[in-house]
Amino acid sequence: MSSITVTVQETQTQASGAIVLATGAAARLAARKNEYTKSTSGLAPGYLQANLMILPSKYASDFRDFCARNPVPCPLIAESCASGDYATLKSYLPSVSGAQMARELDLRTDCPKFNVYENSQLTLAGTPDIVEQWTADHVAFLVGCSYSFESALARAGFPPRHALLDRNVCMYRTSIPLNPAGVFTGGTYVVSMRPYKKADIEQIRTITRRYLPTHGECIAWGWDALERLGIRDIDMPQWGDAPLTMDGRPLGDVFGNDDDVPIFWGCGVTPQEAVMNASLDGVVMAHAPGHMLVLDCLEDHVIA
Amino acid sequence: MSSITVTVQETQTQASGAIVLATGAAARLAARKNEYTKSTSGLAPGYLQANLMILPSKYASDFRDFCARNPVPCPLIAESCASGDYATLKSYLPSVSGAQMARELDLRTDCPKFNVYENSQLTLAGTPDIVEQWTADHVAFLVGCSYSFESALARAGFPPRHALLDRNVCMYRTSIPLNPAGVFTGGTYVVSMRPYKKADIEQIRTITRRYLPTHGECIAWGWDALERLGIRDIDMPQWGDAPLTMDGRPLGDVFGNDDDVPIFWGCGVTPQEAVMNASLDGVVMAHAPGHMLVLDCLEDHVIA
Repeated sequence: MSSITVTVQETQTQASGAIVLATGAAARLAARKNEYTKSTSGLAPGYLQANLMILPSKYASDFRDFCARNPVPCPLIAESCASGDYATLKSYLPSVSGAQMARELDLRTDCPKFNVYENSQLTLAGTPDIVEQWTADHVAFLVGCSYSFESALARAGFPPRHALLDRNVCMYRTSIPLNPAGVFTGGTYVVSMRPYKKADIEQIRTITRRYLPTHGECIAWGWDALERLGIRDIDMPQWGDAPLTMDGRPLGDVFGNDDDVPIFWGCGVTPQEAVMNASLDGVVMAHAPGHMLVLDCLEDHVIA
Repeated sequence: MSSITVTVQETQTQASGAIVLATGAAARLAARKNEYTKSTSGLAPGYLQANLMILPSKYASDFRDFCARNPVPCPLIAESCASGDYATLKSYLPSVSGAQMARELDLRTDCPKFNVYENSQLTLAGTPDIVEQWTADHVAFLVGCSYSFESALARAGFPPRHALLDRNVCMYRTSIPLNPAGVFTGGTYVVSMRPYKKADIEQIRTITRRYLPTHGECIAWGWDALERLGIRDIDMPQWGDAPLTMDGRPLGDVFGNDDDVPIFWGCGVTPQEAVMNASLDGVVMAHAPGHMLVLDCLEDHVIA
C-alpha cells in the first residue's frame, strides 16, 4: 500500500459535519481498514464512484447484455480482468484505462459495506468485507453512480439536500420494467431522488444529462411522477434515508408544493433488484446501497 | 444508378405470394421508382433493414442521447454524414462502414412509403417520397429494425406468422415509459408482436438476443404481458395488420391459449411516437411503419 500516500488521516470536515477525504484511493483505504463505514456521497469530492456487482462467471454474459439493454439504471463502466481477479479492471469508459480507474484495488474490501446474496436471497446486509465469500469463479462489474454528478450540481448552486443534511440519498423501487436479458427477467428500475424547486428542473436536467455513464439526465420529475413510477410513499424509501424538507420535516408534508419537487434518476441499486428477481444459483455480492467503490479517476472523465 | 445491377425485374415469389428481391440495393431502387410500395418484411432476405428518422439539425444532439438512453426500442445504427446529406451515411455498427451500408442512396425516395410530421403532428401518411419536404437543415438517423432477425427465426424453424400470411407485422403503443432526453420527454415504447407457442419462448429469446442493434431479445411475452404493457386489445394494433391465427381468425379468439402466445419486441416506430410527444418545431420525416429502408449490408453483420 506504500504508493497510496493520502490516507484517512488527511481529512477535512464539511459544514454538515461529514468527513471529506482527499482522493478516491484514500476513500478505498479507509473502507478497507473499516475506518470509514458510512455512505460515500461527498466523501472524496470530484472522484468517480461506482456500484459493484459480483456474479458467478456463468452469469457474466447475461449481465453484460442486461447492462447494454438498460444503460440508464445500469451503465456498465468496468469489469474485472478475469474470473477471480479482484485487483485489476478492464474499463469501458473511452477516456480512462482500467489502471487509471483504481490502483492497488481490492474489490473484496474497498467498499465501506457490502451485501451478500445466496440463491437470489439477501443473506448478509452491510458486511464490512467479502473476503470469505469471494471465489476464483467470481466476476466483478462496476456500474456508474449518480453521486458522480453531485459535485457538478453543487458547483452550479444546486447542492443535493441529502448532502447538506449529512444523510444518505433516498432510493425507491419502481414499477417501471427493465428490458430483460437472459436470466435477468422481471426486474424493475430502482431510482434515486433529490428534491429541488420546480422552476429549477430544466437546469438540473441540463447539468446531469452530460454524465451519460452515471445515469445522466433525470428520468422523471414532479409530484405526479410518483404515480407513474409506482412509488406509494415518498417518506418510505426502500434504501437510504427518508427525504426531509430543509427544516427537517418529512418531505411528504409538502406533497404537491412546487417549492419542493422530487426529481428521480436511474440508480445503480437496480442490478441488485434484478438479481433478487432472477433466481440465480450461488453467491452474488454487491456494495451496500449508498456505500460505493470510490475510484482514482475523476467524475469529469465520464462527461459526454 | 448504373452500378445497381440487380433490379426489381429479378424477383422471386414467396409461397405466400409476396415479392422477393435479390438485394437491398434492388429493394431501394424498387422503392425509389415506386414499383414496390408495400411492407418490406421478407423483401430482400438476409439484408439489414432500418427505421428512418429525419429531424431538423437543432434536435440531432437530443435524438442521439435519446437513442443512447433507449437502445432496445431505438438502436441507432447510422446517421447522415452532414445536415442536408441524403446520400451518404456514418455507421455506428463496428463491423460495417457507412459506404458498405448503402451505395447510391437517396434517403428522400428509398423507402416504399414515408410519413411527414409538422410541429409534431402527422400531416402526411404513406407518401411515396419526401423530395419536396427535404431541406439542407435535415439530419437523418437509421434505427435498427426487428425484420432483421426474421430470417434467423425462419432458419431455425420459426418463420414469423405475418410473413407466412403475407401481412405486415402488428405494432402497438404501450404504457412503458422511455428514458427522456432533452426535448424527447413523455414518450412510451412501441412494440412489435409475433405469436409463437409458449413452449418455444426460450428458443425464440435465444435466437433474437444476439441481434442487439436490431432490438435483440423480446421484452415481454405471454398473454399476461398485455396488461403489463398497457395493450388493451391484441386485435387492434396501432400500426401494421391485425394478428391472426393460422386459420385466419383474430388472434384475440384464442386469448389465454398457450398454443398461441404473443411475444413482444422493441420497435423502431418508437422514435415517431416520441416525436409526436415532443412538441418539436418544423418538419420531421420518417419511413411509414413497416416500410423500411433496406441496406446493402447483411443482418448477420449486427450479431453480437
